[in-house]
Amino acid sequence: MDVLAFAQSLLRCQSVTPADGGTQGLLAAQLEALGFTVTRLRYGEIENLFAERPGAGAHLCFAGHTDVVPPGEGWGHDPFGGVVEGGMLYGRGAVDMKGAIAAFVAAAARAPGHVSLLITGDEEGVATDGTVRVLEWMAANGKIPDFCVVGEPTSRAVLGDVVKIGRRGSMNARITVTGRQGHVAYPHLADNPVHRLIAALGAMTAAPLDSGNEWFEPSSLQVTSVDVGNAASNVIPATASARLNVRFNNLHGSAGLTEWLRGILAEFAPANELQVQVSGEAFLTQAGLHTEALTRAIEKVTGVTPERNTGGGTSDARFIARYCPVAEFGLVGVSMHRTDEAVEVAALSRLADVYKTLIEDFCR
Amino acid sequence: MDVLAFAQSLLRCQSVTPADGGTQGLLAAQLEALGFTVTRLRYGEIENLFAERPGAGAHLCFAGHTDVVPPGEGWGHDPFGGVVEGGMLYGRGAVDMKGAIAAFVAAAARAPGHVSLLITGDEEGVATDGTVRVLEWMAANGKIPDFCVVGEPTSRAVLGDVVKIGRRGSMNARITVTGRQGHVAYPHLADNPVHRLIAALGAMTAAPLDSGNEWFEPSSLQVTSVDVGNAASNVIPATASARLNVRFNNLHGSAGLTEWLRGILAEFAPANELQVQVSGEAFLTQAGLHTEALTRAIEKVTGVTPERNTGGGTSDARFIARYCPVAEFGLVGVSMHRTDEAVEVAALSRLADVYKTLIEDFCR
Ligand SMILES: [Zn+2]
Ligand SMILES: [Zn+2]
Repeated sequence: MDVLAFAQSLLRCQSVTPADGGTQGLLAAQLEALGFTVTRLRYGEIENLFAERPGAGAHLCFAGHTDVVPPGEGWGHDPFGGVVEGGMLYGRGAVDMKGAIAAFVAAAARAPGHVSLLITGDEEGVATDGTVRVLEWMAANGKIPDFCVVGEPTSRAVLGDVVKIGRRGSMNARITVTGRQGHVAYPHLADNPVHRLIAALGAMTAAPLDSGNEWFEPSSLQVTSVDVGNAASNVIPATASARLNVRFNNLHGSAGLTEWLRGILAEFAPANELQVQVSGEAFLTQAGLHTEALTRAIEKVTGVTPERNTGGGTSDARFIARYCPVAEFGLVGVSMHRTDEAVEVAALSRLADVYKTLIEDFCR
Repeated sequence: MDVLAFAQSLLRCQSVTPADGGTQGLLAAQLEALGFTVTRLRYGEIENLFAERPGAGAHLCFAGHTDVVPPGEGWGHDPFGGVVEGGMLYGRGAVDMKGAIAAFVAAAARAPGHVSLLITGDEEGVATDGTVRVLEWMAANGKIPDFCVVGEPTSRAVLGDVVKIGRRGSMNARITVTGRQGHVAYPHLADNPVHRLIAALGAMTAAPLDSGNEWFEPSSLQVTSVDVGNAASNVIPATASARLNVRFNNLHGSAGLTEWLRGILAEFAPANELQVQVSGEAFLTQAGLHTEALTRAIEKVTGVTPERNTGGGTSDARFIARYCPVAEFGLVGVSMHRTDEAVEVAALSRLADVYKTLIEDFCR
């Protein structure tokens, strides 16, 4: 089982989200050849799989995605060619995260133990028919692991320098405030919704939500748009709307934040509509045997002691955290979502070694 | 010289701004027949005229406009038919303000004195080639009157109940705030212009500009639009803009207000662009012989003592106030700019009587 050859096979599949491009079948066949029981889980148009190999010790799950973002224009290498040049393997998904999936498989091929893989084809898309639903199936079938490692490209400068042990939560809100239209010359006959919205947004942004803690940066509320669209300079409009995003740490939950937004709106703009969309709650995996095993494996293979942090955007780890301890560790992510996404071939092997060492340590 | 017949002739001209529709020629001919010297003043595409009749005493000028707003749909009478039905004269411009122009002419026909007429065809439009330019011509030719009466439909419920002796000023501002675009997950790398704009607009609207005075309502600043147009919920935008209108009384001037806006922007959003468009400064005609003569004429003819106020939108009186004392008095304005705009035929005669009485009183 050659990690580079298998990564190349995966990169040659055109799996721009939500397309599968043959990746899941390729992976299923390889895992079955290694003694895994593979359950293909198709939800809507999305191909997913859960693969499990019985074995001694604790149950370690590797999680990842076979879908990739569109390549875009301007590549110097075929984004679906799986080309190696100057010690680098090029292709869309090389680091995010077909490379890591190849490393999962190569590691499992070389170390015994109770290992499973949760692989979705819907991480870069809307993420509704992917990891969320596979986890529901796993829970219903008694397959929740003791620890899950997501193979997102967490490393910053060199392989091993960063492990993510949590992520901030994220929610979007859309606010529409209604007033009473009128002529600017007669403001007492109107009720300017723009003024109400300004006051409410002012109260929402006046002070930081918190000052962060040991593991998290301060939570942040960003008003991303305010839109009235009134071209008539002598007219007080009837409605005004705004959009905002909150990235929140583990001092907050989306329900409490929603209540807080509602309270401010009730004070400044009682005639309002608030629509909230929660992308994920904040989570933090407390240090324990699992994270220590991951740290030891990284140190042993790479010689680097990883910084543990919670930075960055969101990943499917937010869903997994509802069920079991989860950490994220993978390749250097600099080229992810960019042209000429690439991974050092040597790093791919070292990543497989880290995962193999983790299996040996955690599953014994 | 029959005021109704002449009003009907004017109403039958299709003078939807900026079209003249023959109104100015009709008026010029009638005034020449009454001994006026008429100077036709065409500026750009706009027909205007200044007409003067020498005579004893002070120089009284009547000012008005022959253009009208579009009739729109849904009339029960031909908007350009000059139809009389049930004692009412119907037509676009009946009260605003072809009726008043007919009353000017009928009054001048019946009372001697130094009377002039300043009639523009560009009041309902952009008002750049109308009264402003005629006044420049009048100033250059030594024709500035001692008192000017604008025939706008100031009466509220019955003819004679309201005279306007001032108007609020009006200015529009457009603000664009520039920040630094970024991802909502990394707010420290961005500079959210929406937050800066919200804070600036909050400061602008936090407190009333003043509490008004004997003659004026409080000044009012209304934010009429805020626009960002950012549909990407995970992106902090690069710019944010707003529009606002200030209706200000004689405690303020547009220059001082502009400085005040600049100061707030400098504090909250230093990278800004402020564009200000001044429609007119506030003005107030202090009580004097002229306004007293107008009040006496109204009382004598209508039996009503007019309330003097400064309410409502803007009119060309704002331009005239730069040169001489000005007041506005005309028909009941309820139907202006509406379908089936109409004037009581009897009110038209009474208005001509008021203007005639004013000439007799003021020009003697
Ligand atoms: Zn990814
Ligand atoms: Zn008018």
